[in-house]
Amino acid sequence: MEKIVALCKRRGFIFQGSEIYGGLGGTWDYGPAGSLLKKNIIDLWWKEMVQLRDDVVGVDAAIMMNPKAWEASGHVEAFTDPLVECKVCHLRFRADKPEEIKAHEATHKGKKVEWTEPMNFNLLVKSYLGVLEGKQTEIYLRGEITNGVHVNFKNVMDSTRVKIPFGIAQVGKAFRNEITPGNFVFRSREFEQMEVQYYIKPEEKEGNKWFEYWKQNRMDWYLSLGMKKENLRFRDHESTERAHYAKTATDIEYNSPWGWQEFMGIHHRGDWDLSRHQKFSGQDLSVLDQETGERYIPWDIETSAGVTRSLLFILVDSYREKDNRIWLELDPRLAPYKVAIFPLLGNKPELIGKAKGIYDNLKEKFMVAFDDRGNIGKRYLAQDEVGTPWCITVDFQTLEDDTVTVRDRDTTKQERISIKELENYINKKLA
Amino acid sequence: MEKIVALCKRRGFIFQGSEIYGGLGGTWDYGPAGSLLKKNIIDLWWKEMVQLRDDVVGVDAAIMMNPKAWEASGHVEAFTDPLVECKVCHLRFRADKPEEIKAHEATHKGKKVEWTEPMNFNLLVKSYLGVLEGKQTEIYLRGEITNGVHVNFKNVMDSTRVKIPFGIAQVGKAFRNEITPGNFVFRSREFEQMEVQYYIKPEEKEGNKWFEYWKQNRMDWYLSLGMKKENLRFRDHESTERAHYAKTATDIEYNSPWGWQEFMGIHHRGDWDLSRHQKFSGQDLSVLDQETGERYIPWDIETSAGVTRSLLFILVDSYREKDNRIWLELDPRLAPYKVAIFPLLGNKPELIGKAKGIYDNLKEKFMVAFDDRGNIGKRYLAQDEVGTPWCITVDFQTLEDDTVTVRDRDTTKQERISIKELENYINKKLA
Repeated sequence: MEKIVALCKRRGFIFQGSEIYGGLGGTWDYGPAGSLLKKNIIDLWWKEMVQLRDDVVGVDAAIMMNPKAWEASGHVEAFTDPLVECKVCHLRFRADKPEEIKAHEATHKGKKVEWTEPMNFNLLVKSYLGVLEGKQTEIYLRGEITNGVHVNFKNVMDSTRVKIPFGIAQVGKAFRNEITPGNFVFRSREFEQMEVQYYIKPEEKEGNKWFEYWKQNRMDWYLSLGMKKENLRFRDHESTERAHYAKTATDIEYNSPWGWQEFMGIHHRGDWDLSRHQKFSGQDLSVLDQETGERYIPWDIETSAGVTRSLLFILVDSYREKDNRIWLELDPRLAPYKVAIFPLLGNKPELIGKAKGIYDNLKEKFMVAFDDRGNIGKRYLAQDEVGTPWCITVDFQTLEDDTVTVRDRDTTKQERISIKELENYINKKLA
Repeated sequence: MEKIVALCKRRGFIFQGSEIYGGLGGTWDYGPAGSLLKKNIIDLWWKEMVQLRDDVVGVDAAIMMNPKAWEASGHVEAFTDPLVECKVCHLRFRADKPEEIKAHEATHKGKKVEWTEPMNFNLLVKSYLGVLEGKQTEIYLRGEITNGVHVNFKNVMDSTRVKIPFGIAQVGKAFRNEITPGNFVFRSREFEQMEVQYYIKPEEKEGNKWFEYWKQNRMDWYLSLGMKKENLRFRDHESTERAHYAKTATDIEYNSPWGWQEFMGIHHRGDWDLSRHQKFSGQDLSVLDQETGERYIPWDIETSAGVTRSLLFILVDSYREKDNRIWLELDPRLAPYKVAIFPLLGNKPELIGKAKGIYDNLKEKFMVAFDDRGNIGKRYLAQDEVGTPWCITVDFQTLEDDTVTVRDRDTTKQERISIKELENYINKKLA
């Protein structure tokens, strides 16, 4: 894991938030490579969910919501983690994470540690809006992005041609006052989610069908991104651990360096959200059944993935090390840069000019890196570590016959390709 | 303007935030069409800035930052608006917005209104992190996205091959406790920005050159998106109104329904940010001049655009009304849907099947809408109002000769095209 963290910093994937100020616990910044990787994950997801499906539309709701929405969804009351305090040093920890409790006890070197009784700690981050001192509205930053979808359910139905069953997709930031942020970006106080709320008829059979459908659909998606099958598994929630809203729930877990960890969930939320929002808002959120003429509150099957957790596990899963070479075997669609272009020597204007010409031709279609500094081996090494699938080198033969070498990241094999074939070559590999 | 607001709600561009709960002042949700339009603006901007330029890289920093960053940047001290309170009813207003003051006085129907002396009201939104009651850290939600770039200046230089001059691009949300949010999404408490901080050598000549370059570059970009030249203008800041960090500053203003309004700015920030962050963090943020061997703090030319303001003015600028027809003359690259596909009659399975086939073929390449309900005129009308440039209708002739009609949004003219030519046809129009 330390290797991943070091690579993330060295190659511009992830930096500690506010690092020059000593950081701010549980926040992370995405650098030049990381912001591209994150965007690629989100864009592929959005394409899959919104563009390729005729039964899902997108929304992008505000992070700040009327506090009543959080009362309705039960977060004010029940969005808590059990917290215990060490009576010796007054540090606080998650009571439900035995490994963290043990790790802390170990720091006391054998001395007996007493803990307070577990208390419920609410994870919603409070904030204040308004301009009257003392009369500012206490609001919450959203603890999950779901609510912004449900409150727009009626607006979406009224403004589009969707009909049940249909889904609403959303990507965005959420905030949690985590008791113990940790494991790199895994448990952060600020993070990003991508979710579909899929509204269906309130029937047991429909619920089971769509729950199973979305489970498999999501697993297949991560496999299609090249994640290793043996590192992914479903884990059904026990009835005791289910969130307050869930009828049935399954996690998709990743076999991480610190054990199997959840990075996305499929939740059968029943009519919890819409019926609660209907009750608390006084607005009719029911739908007319065209066949029976009756009105009903739809059920919701949710797929909720951590963008940043997905990113972390995609990085871990693609990390390769062999013979002193490190590379990220990222699916080319996810790779921050699709190709890198090198003039063989950085001090020959004719090579640089030729290489720039290729760069200018390809950049319209692909995210392309350009590097003319240092020896070619070091340039390969740098691109391997950001996961660039193909490196194109312009050498003296290029000046004669308009061919370049293309080096494959995973095999390190090179082939000679005509410049005018490059776009086709890359497109074929990306398809 | 009421027409725009109504259309935005009717067609799923923009809804009031938390609408079913009576809203939350100054927040807005983007619906199915709006989230696509916003994404298209951001994606075109990102492509222009990050993909097509070899001197700009991207980052994506956290919204929550160590509070010291906001002390360093001067926001804790100086990020204020002048606020006055009506002594009669205790409502508060911007002292520097005479039109709002007047409008409020009018509500008192001729009775004399007394105002308090203007006081400085800080716009940073406060929030709290941490798990020790009473010892939580007071933090600020970022009031502008700039700081997340500057604090990563060194990390970006160390992890990539950039050299001065170069830029760092970022898109993301920012929050301001606006005294009087208003004019639809124009002045919101939660909004989105897209910025490039462009770092240059600290030389007067360089500063002037790049300032002029970025002014023109940004104006040209908005013109390239089809905004009307007569609705855009530069407005140089007077020395008295410049933000605390700016050496020189220019706004790009739009001729909005409520007068000329700023929606982006080009700011010569000098070495304000990096030198302040260096001082407050104690980290060396200087750069080595390879020629002279001396170290220097770069200057920064910033281009900062409101995503949501750009979106609003793009909508206003593209709004057309003629002969009872309303349409959005959006640049096709910005349009939420590039094409809509209609089976002429929604009750003929053979037409629906044929139309679905075309939909499935095109959706891999373009964002495509499908609509088989109601009469064809109403379907055209709906697509006109979301700005879909081309509507494809599958009719009985299609079943015979595999041609469809393509209707142009702006001219309403139709031509008959072979199905297998459609992708090419659309691609050519989009280029």
